[in-house]
Amino acid sequence: MRTVLFTGATGFLGRHVVSCLLERGHEVHAVSSGPLPQQGPDARLLWHRADLLTFEAASQLVGLTQPTDLVHCAWFARPGVVWNSLENVRWVEASLRLLRAFGDAGGRRALLVGSCAEYDWAHGVCSEARTPIRPASLYGTSKDGLRRVAEAAARSLGVSLVWARPFFLYGPHEHPDRLVPSIIRSLLTGAPAACSEGWQLRDYLHIVDAAAALAALLESELTGPVNVGSGTPVRIRDIVAALGEFIGRADLIRYGAIPTSPGEVPLLLADVARLHDELGWTPGIDLAAGLEEAVEFWRSSASSHGS
Amino acid sequence: MRTVLFTGATGFLGRHVVSCLLERGHEVHAVSSGPLPQQGPDARLLWHRADLLTFEAASQLVGLTQPTDLVHCAWFARPGVVWNSLENVRWVEASLRLLRAFGDAGGRRALLVGSCAEYDWAHGVCSEARTPIRPASLYGTSKDGLRRVAEAAARSLGVSLVWARPFFLYGPHEHPDRLVPSIIRSLLTGAPAACSEGWQLRDYLHIVDAAAALAALLESELTGPVNVGSGTPVRIRDIVAALGEFIGRADLIRYGAIPTSPGEVPLLLADVARLHDELGWTPGIDLAAGLEEAVEFWRSSASSHGS
Repeated sequence: MRTVLFTGATGFLGRHVVSCLLERGHEVHAVSSGPLPQQGPDARLLWHRADLLTFEAASQLVGLTQPTDLVHCAWFARPGVVWNSLENVRWVEASLRLLRAFGDAGGRRALLVGSCAEYDWAHGVCSEARTPIRPASLYGTSKDGLRRVAEAAARSLGVSLVWARPFFLYGPHEHPDRLVPSIIRSLLTGAPAACSEGWQLRDYLHIVDAAAALAALLESELTGPVNVGSGTPVRIRDIVAALGEFIGRADLIRYGAIPTSPGEVPLLLADVARLHDELGWTPGIDLAAGLEEAVEFWRSSASSHGS
Repeated sequence: MRTVLFTGATGFLGRHVVSCLLERGHEVHAVSSGPLPQQGPDARLLWHRADLLTFEAASQLVGLTQPTDLVHCAWFARPGVVWNSLENVRWVEASLRLLRAFGDAGGRRALLVGSCAEYDWAHGVCSEARTPIRPASLYGTSKDGLRRVAEAAARSLGVSLVWARPFFLYGPHEHPDRLVPSIIRSLLTGAPAACSEGWQLRDYLHIVDAAAALAALLESELTGPVNVGSGTPVRIRDIVAALGEFIGRADLIRYGAIPTSPGEVPLLLADVARLHDELGWTPGIDLAAGLEEAVEFWRSSASSHGS
């Protein structure tokens, strides 16, 4: 059993990773800056409310929880503004403070969450070892800068650090303004769903699969960057079409109503060799099944999420 | 006239840059965490005592001084331990806080100080545009990580940022344990001066020249990394020999008494094309004259600096 200090525990990815870690028998000290969920029946899940952007939060949390492991999912994540917000810089600072506090207190294993936005997207297939790092946003640059310093700091701290690079994730609790939920929500309310032509190929992974990969990464001895993706390209257009079919309102989809932005590349795919060959992990959730489940999630939560 | 917030103002490089900026007519708000020099007759130099590693220092200083320009020379700088100390990480955090505070308050032009330690030293001649970045220490990685995030943050903040990369600097007020002072101090006291064989070629620039280059960089509109060096290679052995000759105790020099460390490369030289061609700047102090002056500095301050 590990004692895991877990940031971003109420986030889209974080909440699913917490579940995985509890299933695997670990004690989780879950941190969130917002209102905390009610303490459930699982005594191995303990909630802490803290704002990691304040100066003392990390050292206080570490002192209180004495973690052996750290999973750091917290970050600024508002769709649209996330790319060039200065909040990214505050999260670089906060993440370094957290890692130092964790290592200073004797923590041994850390998983930090990066992004496919660290890569040069012109390369299409992104390999940890071969693809140049050339982030096009302050978000990607901040994640990349953090990784560089965090990896070197971890060596000085005696912390084993693995850096997960998720690609495109979807599933329950996704932000309502992102692609899959926004299409579903439009179609469920009978409103036209505007999208781009959608010919671009992307790497989509179900959030529950991504969470399982992160839990396995934490338990592994892998270090450095590891892509977290399906390794299978899918056309955005095919995702939208599948949602239209599940909901029975394909007639509402307006392909091409949103211009394809100049920065869009035709292909963005994770090279998952490290995930497959070194970690021995493969995704379990079929895309069609995952999308159908997402439709059910939004159908059942339509009243609480509005629209 | 610019209003310059200046960190590290009592440091080896900082103190000389402050002098240059005053000579050029700017107002300098000089920050140091240690005891402050007495306020001199120049009303355009104002001293502030602050520890930038605390959370509020940067925003307080910026609020107080309302700077148009920022020169950030402060960093952890203890010879020997500097390479892998976690203090480097704290300075990444502090530097990002400072840049954000400066930009948020309307600051427009910033000069941050990096290092030749950001480069892959296997390449010998280091060019900003062509030489790979591959720092071998936590110090170099921290400077590099800071630069990446700071440049992107500056764009979001509307700050014009230039990143100076000094090579090897020498001159008055250098740390007594670094090469030139340590040889001089040994020879002045009649003690044997142990050194390596010293065949390696390095780029040495007098601190007053480096300071003049930094002041000119601040006033320029150059952005991004700019090497600050002489562009002229000199053998370490020749520096040591010159010191022996000036002091008249060449007999005390023990070449080869210190093994050449495995990380030493045969050549490390700044490509100074940006400094020469874009900034129009060339060094003014001849190496032999600079070394002779350094001998005089240590001779005259031998009592106060010990030996």
